[in-house]
Amino acid sequence: MNATIHRIGRDAEPSLDPLIALVAADMNLVNQVILDRMQSQIPLIPELAGHLIAGGGKRMRPMLTVASAKLLGYPGNRHHKLAATVEFIHTATLLHDDVVDGSDLRRGKRTANLIWGNPASVLVGDFLFSRSFELMVEDGSLKVLKILSNASAVIAEGEVNQLTAARRIDLGEERYLEIINAKTAALFAAACRIAAVVAERPEAEEAALDAYGRNLGIAFQLVDDAIDYVSDAGTMGKDAGDDFREGKMTLPVILAYSRGNDEDRAFWKEAVLGRRVSDADFAHAVSLVQSSRAVDDTLARARHYGQRAIDSLGMFPGSAAKDAMIEAVEFAVARAY
Amino acid sequence: MNATIHRIGRDAEPSLDPLIALVAADMNLVNQVILDRMQSQIPLIPELAGHLIAGGGKRMRPMLTVASAKLLGYPGNRHHKLAATVEFIHTATLLHDDVVDGSDLRRGKRTANLIWGNPASVLVGDFLFSRSFELMVEDGSLKVLKILSNASAVIAEGEVNQLTAARRIDLGEERYLEIINAKTAALFAAACRIAAVVAERPEAEEAALDAYGRNLGIAFQLVDDAIDYVSDAGTMGKDAGDDFREGKMTLPVILAYSRGNDEDRAFWKEAVLGRRVSDADFAHAVSLVQSSRAVDDTLARARHYGQRAIDSLGMFPGSAAKDAMIEAVEFAVARAY
Repeated sequence: MNATIHRIGRDAEPSLDPLIALVAADMNLVNQVILDRMQSQIPLIPELAGHLIAGGGKRMRPMLTVASAKLLGYPGNRHHKLAATVEFIHTATLLHDDVVDGSDLRRGKRTANLIWGNPASVLVGDFLFSRSFELMVEDGSLKVLKILSNASAVIAEGEVNQLTAARRIDLGEERYLEIINAKTAALFAAACRIAAVVAERPEAEEAALDAYGRNLGIAFQLVDDAIDYVSDAGTMGKDAGDDFREGKMTLPVILAYSRGNDEDRAFWKEAVLGRRVSDADFAHAVSLVQSSRAVDDTLARARHYGQRAIDSLGMFPGSAAKDAMIEAVEFAVARAY
Repeated sequence: MNATIHRIGRDAEPSLDPLIALVAADMNLVNQVILDRMQSQIPLIPELAGHLIAGGGKRMRPMLTVASAKLLGYPGNRHHKLAATVEFIHTATLLHDDVVDGSDLRRGKRTANLIWGNPASVLVGDFLFSRSFELMVEDGSLKVLKILSNASAVIAEGEVNQLTAARRIDLGEERYLEIINAKTAALFAAACRIAAVVAERPEAEEAALDAYGRNLGIAFQLVDDAIDYVSDAGTMGKDAGDDFREGKMTLPVILAYSRGNDEDRAFWKEAVLGRRVSDADFAHAVSLVQSSRAVDDTLARARHYGQRAIDSLGMFPGSAAKDAMIEAVEFAVARAY
């Protein structure tokens, strides 16, 4: 028997559609839980939460919970409530992120903090976070509770880490990876892992799904970082240059700074302090990340993590779910091309 | 055998000291958990959290968990970790409250949001909240998790309710009580109730301790509201007039408005819109709440809830713990005199 080797980049035009089709029926049930459980007698809560929850997000994390459950042939329905839990945690994080960053656009729409103000965004985020724990407690698995409460603490720690790293040109790739591991990848990992818990699979399969989610999450984030320096307006609801104008430390900046000459470094130092926000500045930044191959190598790093995500599925037999999860990785890393 | 009747107001000079003495040894252990578990590799987290946690709070809620455990003769130590959990939830709430209110002083000290900024306060609050759930999960009681996750959701809902009620002169006493029930009393109730859970006592004792905490919490809040219109600077770390100048809707305002003539009402309408912030305005407000007996009756309401708190302990046999818990109620309602 031949080895089954899936090399990343095999698919010419990878798509998220197989994953979406795979989970569609379950996601209807997940969405029902989300809509039911974001209700409150205080009208502002569903109003504000619904703005973001109904606002065109891909629901990537709950989709991963559902897809992982499919991969394992899980016949039950506990994962619907838990997938909703994961989306609530994510939504709470986004609400607080937008307050912290003072963002006014997300996914091409005005942010909740812009419409309802920072106080409402902070408090509705707290509500969704608390509600997510209520849902987990209803499910009743201490193991799931441990995974998701730990992920939540790691995310919050990562957010504080990122805050203290803000505008620090000397951040370095290692610390940056620590941050996105905590901020982004931890919840991707938990979303996948909990499917193995409800399906009562051995620890090795839990760990494999954790690794799939974690590496996919890192790849996603790195490609998002790269897109800021290459895409036309509108990709993923982000405009090119948003990160740059906010002085965000991302891997393209870290690499371009590290590889640049004194003049380039002076430019980047000014940029992360928010003093280079014109279109000409952004054009110069793009030329620097291109000439230093910083974007290419950010994408190469993303492919590395994407390959690890794919290989982490090696222990699972071939299935439509596995194919869709592999293609989702391909899609994630191909978005910037 | 005679009935045991404790009428509130019996103690001439009630003190919190018996409660503090009762729980002192346990509170050392609780404080150790708090200090251990607010640590993080991200220095900003213990720095900011420690500012508030070490900052002169009475630790009323964890003291209530410990006192309730004493009342029940609980011989174990699970309540130390859970008391720390309660304090983390409370601290997270305070951090977010100060952001929401834009406060610059708490307990006579500069607020964390003033020193480190709103983003750090939001994120460290999230961390403490997540960490509190991790601690609960370590304890491993789904019943405790249910009580505290529900309390957290109720608190968040109450905060949003209060936000939407802000500067609404027509709030009314019923809705105001709903808000403080959720914002303040729910965590007092949960702090007491979980002691009965770890001590494995019957539901009726759980409910009794819940009622003790809830009524004490309401009484505390009402007296805090009254103090704003009577105290000299410094009581409870609050200055007289703080609530007034922030246009906060509290029971003294609700009663004075409801009992006032057209001219008084016009004044209160302006005040809650933040247009009456001078010393003369505050002096006028004090004269209105006095002449309308709004402060007296706020305190009468507080005594009503205090009496209910005391009576809820009726099923427990006499003990030093019970006496201390009763005197704590007396202390709570006597603070304004």
